[in-house]
Amino acid sequence: MADFKIAPSILSADFARLGEEVENVLAAGADYVHFDVMDNHYVPNLTIGPMVCKALRKHGIEAPIDVHLMVSPVDRMIGEFVDAGASFITFHPEASDHIDRSLQMIRDGGCKSGLVFNPATPLTYLEHVLDKVDMVLLMSVNPGFGGQKFLPSTLKKLQQARKIIDDSGFDIRLEVDGGVGTANIGEIAAAGADTFVAGSAIFNTDDYKATIDQMRAELAKA
Amino acid sequence: MADFKIAPSILSADFARLGEEVENVLAAGADYVHFDVMDNHYVPNLTIGPMVCKALRKHGIEAPIDVHLMVSPVDRMIGEFVDAGASFITFHPEASDHIDRSLQMIRDGGCKSGLVFNPATPLTYLEHVLDKVDMVLLMSVNPGFGGQKFLPSTLKKLQQARKIIDDSGFDIRLEVDGGVGTANIGEIAAAGADTFVAGSAIFNTDDYKATIDQMRAELAKA
Amino acid sequence: MADFKIAPSILSADFARLGEEVENVLAAGADYVHFDVMDNHYVPNLTIGPMVCKALRKHGIEAPIDVHLMVSPVDRMIGEFVDAGASFITFHPEASDHIDRSLQMIRDGGCKSGLVFNPATPLTYLEHVLDKVDMVLLMSVNPGFGGQKFLPSTLKKLQQARKIIDDSGFDIRLEVDGGVGTANIGEIAAAGADTFVAGSAIFNTDDYKATIDQMRAELAKA
Amino acid sequence: MADFKIAPSILSADFARLGEEVENVLAAGADYVHFDVMDNHYVPNLTIGPMVCKALRKHGIEAPIDVHLMVSPVDRMIGEFVDAGASFITFHPEASDHIDRSLQMIRDGGCKSGLVFNPATPLTYLEHVLDKVDMVLLMSVNPGFGGQKFLPSTLKKLQQARKIIDDSGFDIRLEVDGGVGTANIGEIAAAGADTFVAGSAIFNTDDYKATIDQMRAELAKA
Amino acid sequence: MADFKIAPSILSADFARLGEEVENVLAAGADYVHFDVMDNHYVPNLTIGPMVCKALRKHGIEAPIDVHLMVSPVDRMIGEFVDAGASFITFHPEASDHIDRSLQMIRDGGCKSGLVFNPATPLTYLEHVLDKVDMVLLMSVNPGFGGQKFLPSTLKKLQQARKIIDDSGFDIRLEVDGGVGTANIGEIAAAGADTFVAGSAIFNTDDYKATIDQMRAELAKA
Amino acid sequence: MADFKIAPSILSADFARLGEEVENVLAAGADYVHFDVMDNHYVPNLTIGPMVCKALRKHGIEAPIDVHLMVSPVDRMIGEFVDAGASFITFHPEASDHIDRSLQMIRDGGCKSGLVFNPATPLTYLEHVLDKVDMVLLMSVNPGFGGQKFLPSTLKKLQQARKIIDDSGFDIRLEVDGGVGTANIGEIAAAGADTFVAGSAIFNTDDYKATIDQMRAELAKA
Repeated sequence: MADFKIAPSILSADFARLGEEVENVLAAGADYVHFDVMDNHYVPNLTIGPMVCKALRKHGIEAPIDVHLMVSPVDRMIGEFVDAGASFITFHPEASDHIDRSLQMIRDGGCKSGLVFNPATPLTYLEHVLDKVDMVLLMSVNPGFGGQKFLPSTLKKLQQARKIIDDSGFDIRLEVDGGVGTANIGEIAAAGADTFVAGSAIFNTDDYKATIDQMRAELAKA
Repeated sequence: MADFKIAPSILSADFARLGEEVENVLAAGADYVHFDVMDNHYVPNLTIGPMVCKALRKHGIEAPIDVHLMVSPVDRMIGEFVDAGASFITFHPEASDHIDRSLQMIRDGGCKSGLVFNPATPLTYLEHVLDKVDMVLLMSVNPGFGGQKFLPSTLKKLQQARKIIDDSGFDIRLEVDGGVGTANIGEIAAAGADTFVAGSAIFNTDDYKATIDQMRAELAKA
Repeated sequence: MADFKIAPSILSADFARLGEEVENVLAAGADYVHFDVMDNHYVPNLTIGPMVCKALRKHGIEAPIDVHLMVSPVDRMIGEFVDAGASFITFHPEASDHIDRSLQMIRDGGCKSGLVFNPATPLTYLEHVLDKVDMVLLMSVNPGFGGQKFLPSTLKKLQQARKIIDDSGFDIRLEVDGGVGTANIGEIAAAGADTFVAGSAIFNTDDYKATIDQMRAELAKA
Repeated sequence: MADFKIAPSILSADFARLGEEVENVLAAGADYVHFDVMDNHYVPNLTIGPMVCKALRKHGIEAPIDVHLMVSPVDRMIGEFVDAGASFITFHPEASDHIDRSLQMIRDGGCKSGLVFNPATPLTYLEHVLDKVDMVLLMSVNPGFGGQKFLPSTLKKLQQARKIIDDSGFDIRLEVDGGVGTANIGEIAAAGADTFVAGSAIFNTDDYKATIDQMRAELAKA
Repeated sequence: MADFKIAPSILSADFARLGEEVENVLAAGADYVHFDVMDNHYVPNLTIGPMVCKALRKHGIEAPIDVHLMVSPVDRMIGEFVDAGASFITFHPEASDHIDRSLQMIRDGGCKSGLVFNPATPLTYLEHVLDKVDMVLLMSVNPGFGGQKFLPSTLKKLQQARKIIDDSGFDIRLEVDGGVGTANIGEIAAAGADTFVAGSAIFNTDDYKATIDQMRAELAKA
Repeated sequence: MADFKIAPSILSADFARLGEEVENVLAAGADYVHFDVMDNHYVPNLTIGPMVCKALRKHGIEAPIDVHLMVSPVDRMIGEFVDAGASFITFHPEASDHIDRSLQMIRDGGCKSGLVFNPATPLTYLEHVLDKVDMVLLMSVNPGFGGQKFLPSTLKKLQQARKIIDDSGFDIRLEVDGGVGTANIGEIAAAGADTFVAGSAIFNTDDYKATIDQMRAELAKA
C-alpha cells in the first residue's frame, strides 16, 4: 500500500484562531499542512503570505507545511517561504520563465520542490526536470475560483503522471487538489495519487478526526 | 482637541491567534484595526487578503477595520473587501487608472474611501476628488519594506495635507503610517495628523494598554 | 460667443449601419465625429479600431473625426489612426511614458493632438506641453464604464483648464465628455468648455436635428 | 462527405454598412459570421468588440457568429461576448492562465467553446480539455498581421488535429483561418478541416455567391 | 560663475574601443562620463548595462560615471550599478512606485542620487524628496528616440527647476540632456543648468578638446 | 566528423576594448561571435544591445555574429539586430506570442533564425516550425544568472533534439550554451551538439588559442 498523505488546506480553516485550527487538524491525523498562496495576479484572489507561515512555525507547528504558490512571478516568494519555514514549495510552470532555476532555488533553500499543473496544462513541462522535482501537484479544479467540483479528466491525467514518475525512478509524490472528499478519494488514489489536499471536506465538518479516518479507510480499500 | 484615533497594524500581531490579538488590542483602547494588504506586485511582499478580514468579522470584531490596499490593480480587491466587512478602504493613486471610479466603488459598497500617498507622491492627486475621499493616508516610510524610520519630510507634507483638507470643508481624516511611536506621536499630531497607525510600537510591547495610554497622553499634549 | 462644436460619440450609434448614422448626425448639424477607442486594458471594454475609421472615410465622411484613445500604450495606435484618416487624436497622459513624443507623432502625422484628463488626473501634465496640444479633453465621467452621470467637480476643473489655456495664448480647444445633454450643456459652456461630446443624448433621441438645435440654443444662452 | 462550413471574416467587409454586408454574404451561402477581435496587446492591432456583435444581432442577423478572440486576458471578453450574442467563442491557450476555466465559462454562457492554435503552438494544450472543446481553430497565418499567405506546414498540423479529434470521439469542428481561397480549399479540406474562414477571398470579389459556390464545388471534390 | 560640468554621453562613442574613447574624452577636458542605460521597455531601445560600467572602472577610469537609467523597474539596476562603480545614478519617477526608497537605495550604496524628468513630466515629483536628491536631470528631447532637436520649452522648465533647487537650500546639480551643443549651451546655462550632457556634439567631431573648449568658452560668457 | 563551431560569448570579454578582444579570439580560431542580449525583464540582468553589434561590424569584424536574445518581447529587437549586422538571431519561444512570425522576420531580414530552449522548456515548440529554424540552442544553465554548472539533464535533451533535427531533413545547427569547457565538450558533442558557446572558459584563460585548440582536440575525439 502506498504511503498516503492527507494535507488539509488551511484556506478553509478559521483565520482568527489559525494556530489552534492547525493543531486540531494535525491531532486529528493530518499529515501535511497545505498552504495556498494567491497574489491576485496569477489567480483572481489574494490569501495569505509568508508571515502567516512563519507565525505557524513560531506557534509550534512542526508538521510539514506544503506551500502551493499561485503567484507570478515566483522567485521572490520562494525565497520568503524558505525563510518562513516551508517544507514543500510548489509553483506553476507558466508562472516562471526559469523553471529549472526556481526548482533549484527551492532545493538550495533546504525545501522540497514541486510543479503544479492546471487542468489544461500539459505534462510536457515535467520531462526535463524530473531530477529536480519532489512533488507533482495536479489541480482537479481551476485554482483561485470557488465552488468547483472535481474534474473527471484528472483521473486519466493522474494515470499519465503516475507512469512518468514511476518510469523516472525518482522519488516524487503525486498530489491532487480540488474537490477531493471521502466519496472520491479512493478512486483518485486508484488513479495514482498518493497525497490529497482537502479543504472544506475536512474543515467544514464537525469532527476532523472522523473525516480523516474515513478518508484513510477509503484509501485502504483503494 | 482633535478626535484622535489609534489604529494598530495587525501585521505585527501573532497570526496564529489573530482574533485574540485583535480583541486584546481593542480592549487596550485601540480605535481602528489597521489591515495591510500587499500583493507582491505593488510592493515586494504578500500579506493577507479578504478571507482574513472576513474571519475577524465572523470572530465578532465590531470595531472599524481600516484596510490599506498596497495592491495594483485595485478594483477587484475593493469589491472583495467590501464583501469581507471592511470599514475604510484606502488605495494608492498610482495603482488605479480610474481613481475617481475606484473611490466611488468603495462608497457605493457602503465603506469609507481614501487615498494613500507614498513619501514622494505629490498631493496633486487629491485636488479633483476631495468630495469623494473620507481619509487621506500619508506614508511616513516606504510601504512594503521593513525596518524603516519615520521620514522627517512627512511633517511638512502633513501640514500641507491638513491645509488642503481644512480649506475643502469636507470631513476627511488625516492618517499617518510608518515609524510612529510614543516618542514622536505628539509632533506628528501637531503637524496635522488625527489618525495614527502603529504596528510593532504596540504589538512588540508587553502591555498594549500602557502603550496606547502613553500615546494618548502625548496626543493630549499636542 | 465662442466657436462651439458638438461632437456626437458614435459609440451610441447603430454599428450595423454606421455610415448612414454618421451621415445623418452630420446632416443634423454635428460638427465632429467623436470616435471612442477602447482596448480592454486601459479601460475595461473593447470597442472599435482604425479599420472602422478608415471605412468612414472611404464611405465619404469628410467631417473632422475626433479620435479619443482609451488605450495603453498609445504610439502604435497613433500611427494607425493617422493612416486611417483621423483629424484629432487625443490620449491619456498616464497611458504614455513619452507624452511629448506621442503628441509630436500626432502632429507629424498631420493631425491635431490632445491630452485627455480622467476626473482625478491633475492638470499638471499640461504645463510643459502647452505648445504641442490642440485640444484638452476633460472626462466628466470615468471612461470605459457605462451608466454614469456628469461629475459636478468637472465644472471647477473646466474653469482651471480654461484659465491655463487662455493664459498660454495658444489656440487649444477645451472639450468635455460624459453625461453632457441639453439640460447641462449651458452650464458646462459657462465653465469654459467649447467642444461637447454627447452620445446617447443624441443617438437615443428620435430627431437628431432637434436635439442638436436645442443644444445650440442652450449654448447661445451661455 | 463532411459537413463543411464557410465562415467569411467580416474584417474584410465594409464597416460603414456592416449589417447589409453580413446579410449579403449570408444570402450568398455563408454558414457562419467569423468575427475577429483584436486588442492591440495579444496582437498588434485593434478591431471590433462586443458592441458590434450586439449590433448585428439587433439588426436581425440570426446565423451563428463565430467569435475569435485575439486578446489577452480573455475572461472579461468572454463574458461580454456571451451577452452580445456570440455563438462560438474561441481563444488562444497562451492568452489564459486558466484555460479549462475559460472554456467552461463559454459553455456556461450557452456558447460553443474553442481553442485557437498559432502556427507554432503545439497541440499539447488540447489533450486534457478535449471534453470541453467544440471547435479547434488552426491559424494558417500569424494572426494580427496583414498580407500573409497560407503556411504549408498547416496541412500536416491539420492531419494531426484531425486524428486527435477523431480518436477522442467528441464532436469537435476543425477550423482553419488564413490565406484560404478557392485555389487551396480542397487541399485544406483533404487534410482534415471542415470549417473555413475566408476574408478578402470573399469580400474582395464582386460576386460573393459565385465565390462561395466555387468553394463548395472544390470542397465537393475533396 | 557656476561650477559647470560637461558630461559626454558614451552612447555616441565607439563601443569597439570604449576604454580608449573614454580616456580621450576625459583627457580632452570632460568632467563626467554620462552612461545611458536603456532596457527596451521604458524606452524603445536597449543599450548597455552594469558590466560595461564595471569594465570602465577595471580599465582605470576614475572620473565620475553619471548613470542615467532609462529602465523600469529600477531597483535591481540600482543595486547592480552601485556594485559596478557608478558615481551618480538617476532614474525617472514614473519608473518606480517607491521613489523615495529608490533614492535612498542609491545613497545607501554610496552614490549620488537623482531624478530625471521627461519633457512633459511635471516637477511635482521633486517636492517631497528634495532632501534625497543630488541631481535633477531635465530631458530636452524624448529619451530613447534618435535624431531629435533641443526642445525650446526646456528653457522655462530649467528656470523653474533652478528656482526650486535654490529655494530648497540643498546642494543639487541641474543637468540637461538632449540636443545640447556649442550653439545653445550658453543659453541653456543662462536658464539655470550647470551640467551638460552632449553625445554626438562631442564624439562626432574630430577634435574632442576643441569642442569642449568651445563649450567652456560659451559657458564663460553665460 | 561533424562541422563543429566554437562560439565564444563576449559577455566574458573586456568591454573596454571589445574590438580587440573579438579580433583576438577570432584569430585564435573561434568560428562565431556569440552575443548575449539581456533586457532585465526576460532575465534579471541587462547587458548589451544592437549599438554594440553595429560597432563590431564597423570595427571590421566579419565573422558570423550569433545573437542570443534573452529579451521579451522580441520583435523590435529582431529588427534592430537585423540592421546592426547580426548573422544568427535566436530567441526563446516563451518570449514571443507569434513565434512563426518572429522566425520569419529574422529570415526576411537576411539572417539565420533560431529558437532557444531553457533547461525545462519542452521541445514541442519546435515541431511546427522546423522549416523556419536554422539553429536550435539548448541552454545547459539558466540564462541570466551567474556561476552555474553544466546541467547534466542537457545531454539527454541534446540527443532528443539531434533526433528531431535529423528526422526533419532540414539543415539546422544544434548549439549548447552554459558551463561548456574543455573537460566536457567531447561528451556534449557526443550527445549531438555541433556548436558550442563558451565564455569564461575561453576569455578567462591567458591563451585563447591554446584553449580553443584543446576544445577542437576533444571534439576530434568525440
